[in-house]
Amino acid sequence: MPPPTVGMVGGGQLARMTYEAATPLNIPLRVLASDPSESAALISTAIDLGSPDDHDDLTRFASGCDVVTFDHELVDLDVLRQLESAGHVLRPSAATLAVATDKQRQRDLLGRRGLPLPSHRRVASVTDVSSFTDEHGWPVVLKAVRGGYDGRGVWIVDDEDAVAGVLEHAEQSDLRLFVEPLLEVERELAVIVARRPGGESVTYPVVETIQVDGICHEVLAPAPLPLDLADEATRLARTVAETIGAVGTLAVELFVVDGTVLLNELAARPHNSGHLTIEGATTSQFENHLRAVADLPLGATDLRAAAVAMVNVIGTPTTGDPTDRLAEALEVRGAHVHLYDKASRPGRKIGHVTVLGDDRDEVRARARTAAEILAGGTMGGPGEMRAGGGSR
Amino acid sequence: MPPPTVGMVGGGQLARMTYEAATPLNIPLRVLASDPSESAALISTAIDLGSPDDHDDLTRFASGCDVVTFDHELVDLDVLRQLESAGHVLRPSAATLAVATDKQRQRDLLGRRGLPLPSHRRVASVTDVSSFTDEHGWPVVLKAVRGGYDGRGVWIVDDEDAVAGVLEHAEQSDLRLFVEPLLEVERELAVIVARRPGGESVTYPVVETIQVDGICHEVLAPAPLPLDLADEATRLARTVAETIGAVGTLAVELFVVDGTVLLNELAARPHNSGHLTIEGATTSQFENHLRAVADLPLGATDLRAAAVAMVNVIGTPTTGDPTDRLAEALEVRGAHVHLYDKASRPGRKIGHVTVLGDDRDEVRARARTAAEILAGGTMGGPGEMRAGGGSR
Repeated sequence: MPPPTVGMVGGGQLARMTYEAATPLNIPLRVLASDPSESAALISTAIDLGSPDDHDDLTRFASGCDVVTFDHELVDLDVLRQLESAGHVLRPSAATLAVATDKQRQRDLLGRRGLPLPSHRRVASVTDVSSFTDEHGWPVVLKAVRGGYDGRGVWIVDDEDAVAGVLEHAEQSDLRLFVEPLLEVERELAVIVARRPGGESVTYPVVETIQVDGICHEVLAPAPLPLDLADEATRLARTVAETIGAVGTLAVELFVVDGTVLLNELAARPHNSGHLTIEGATTSQFENHLRAVADLPLGATDLRAAAVAMVNVIGTPTTGDPTDRLAEALEVRGAHVHLYDKASRPGRKIGHVTVLGDDRDEVRARARTAAEILAGGTMGGPGEMRAGGGSR
Repeated sequence: MPPPTVGMVGGGQLARMTYEAATPLNIPLRVLASDPSESAALISTAIDLGSPDDHDDLTRFASGCDVVTFDHELVDLDVLRQLESAGHVLRPSAATLAVATDKQRQRDLLGRRGLPLPSHRRVASVTDVSSFTDEHGWPVVLKAVRGGYDGRGVWIVDDEDAVAGVLEHAEQSDLRLFVEPLLEVERELAVIVARRPGGESVTYPVVETIQVDGICHEVLAPAPLPLDLADEATRLARTVAETIGAVGTLAVELFVVDGTVLLNELAARPHNSGHLTIEGATTSQFENHLRAVADLPLGATDLRAAAVAMVNVIGTPTTGDPTDRLAEALEVRGAHVHLYDKASRPGRKIGHVTVLGDDRDEVRARARTAAEILAGGTMGGPGEMRAGGGSR
């Protein structure tokens, strides 16, 4: 039986890199893009144009595919449920996405399973936060239940006035909020799980993610952890994938706080923390995402080097066209350059660089050098003073 | 300065894999395909349709590119010289292709440089062969000066009657011939060189190629050679690249005979013996071909594993659609499957499988298992009795 035709909703860099993984395997991949200038639409021959939130566009797209999957999570869940009712196969399912895209539901569900989470409470009023701070103290972090990423939808607040300001903004923007303590985070980790419809799954080695202002700047593999912590992170990620019925890749982000691991966020799709698997692991997250949603056997996830570093190319005010400096970046030994062909804007991820080697600091330095050349200016990355984690 | 727009003449699997390498680097690659169903045309958004031998088609194609390169060598040299005269940049140049595609000229030129070659002589008559056999004995090998590959254009002959038959065929087909002794080949080797216009070059580790009836079935890296032979093969390949002024990748095929290395054939393009570099080396031959013809710094060529094996998926009478058995092939641990989306015909290369690991025999066995599954029948590959070389 030939592999199913996979349809990916969204034409960003995740779809672009999934297309790169689909081609050698000859797995037919269609992409639903909003615009022909989107990253994946520029390189793929199988593009449908349409809105990911439009019922008719999605139905038309799904009708040309055997399986529908996603390069982003900003899809209307009601429309997805209608698609499923009409018999279309979504991987992940609408039920999985409903949990993965709602941080409050996620915490409620995973908390009921007894999994370790930061303390948290729903916030409807300043009083909800005040009573939370009675127990946890100030400052605290307010987070949007849905839609926050790359540092958006997160506010660190020091007092009730600040809370009131965020609540007002949330009401105007129709955002629901919850509150967490501001944790002393020792490290941030991520684990990618790939899971087939029948439950077979593989996990990638635990990586460390270096975030600046909520934006992932660097990813380092393997994470420098005691074995028991790495095992615990892996076990948690696998349990989360089972609990929410994930199919495809699931990125599970975790905090190390006080020497223990806490669950942070989920993304039910290929994820920035897994980009280094393209060269750094035997099977890339993009290939395993495809294999999982196509219900094909999953590939090995072992690292191909003792140390792998990925640094994002993040737009700066002076980036312009990063290919202007491609030659200079390729002077960096072993630099694997990935450019997404996206117009640069300050703070926007427009590419990444991966380097494999024997020494963590050395591969990190090389990847950072090449990424900074491509960014054409300082990306405000982690300086020496921030290395090793910070407050979140 | 952004990278040049590269145009590749030919839409086969080499163009397909070059496109796969161009996308992450955001190097613009256009492909001239004869037909929209060609391997590269099926996956690339930048296809021009036209004949690689038609002056007008090629001129139109070249006018849309900064640099023109090739996925095959069956291009009319006079047309290429006209393109160069009109100011188009060909990499490799028409002069390089004139040597690389003419085995007799190649041998004359490289022989004058003092490089080690099999004995050889031009053949216009049976007498030419008879006088050659006076020195070298029967049987001998007759080879077409141009156009032979995958075992075509090669005849092993035992006597003058057989020579007369081949000569008659050659005259009908307008082929020129030369003769070589039938060598006792201990191993066949290949070295890929990537060379920039200014002469900067890199070489890949020497690989062993396993041929059956003139068709490459398997490639193993590194070749199991004494260090001095590997060094000599590498030195020869680099010298050949310089001698013929190669730009882009050049595959240099060699024989080991009586414990020494002899030059065999050249291909001035990415080559089957370099497919294992996609996963098996830090930079793939396709990426380095692009970097070389775009005059960008070349990437590192070191192997990523102690042992790398590539086995071609060669069509058999029962192959049908290899994706029917993709699931089964992906059960093979660490199998990197590449399918070219070409209709299967007996003897036609329609894909390949690469496996990385620690042990040569083990990775070879795994790659062979997956390739045979995809081929859906025995490919007539090297059996135990042929392992380690054969007569050529």
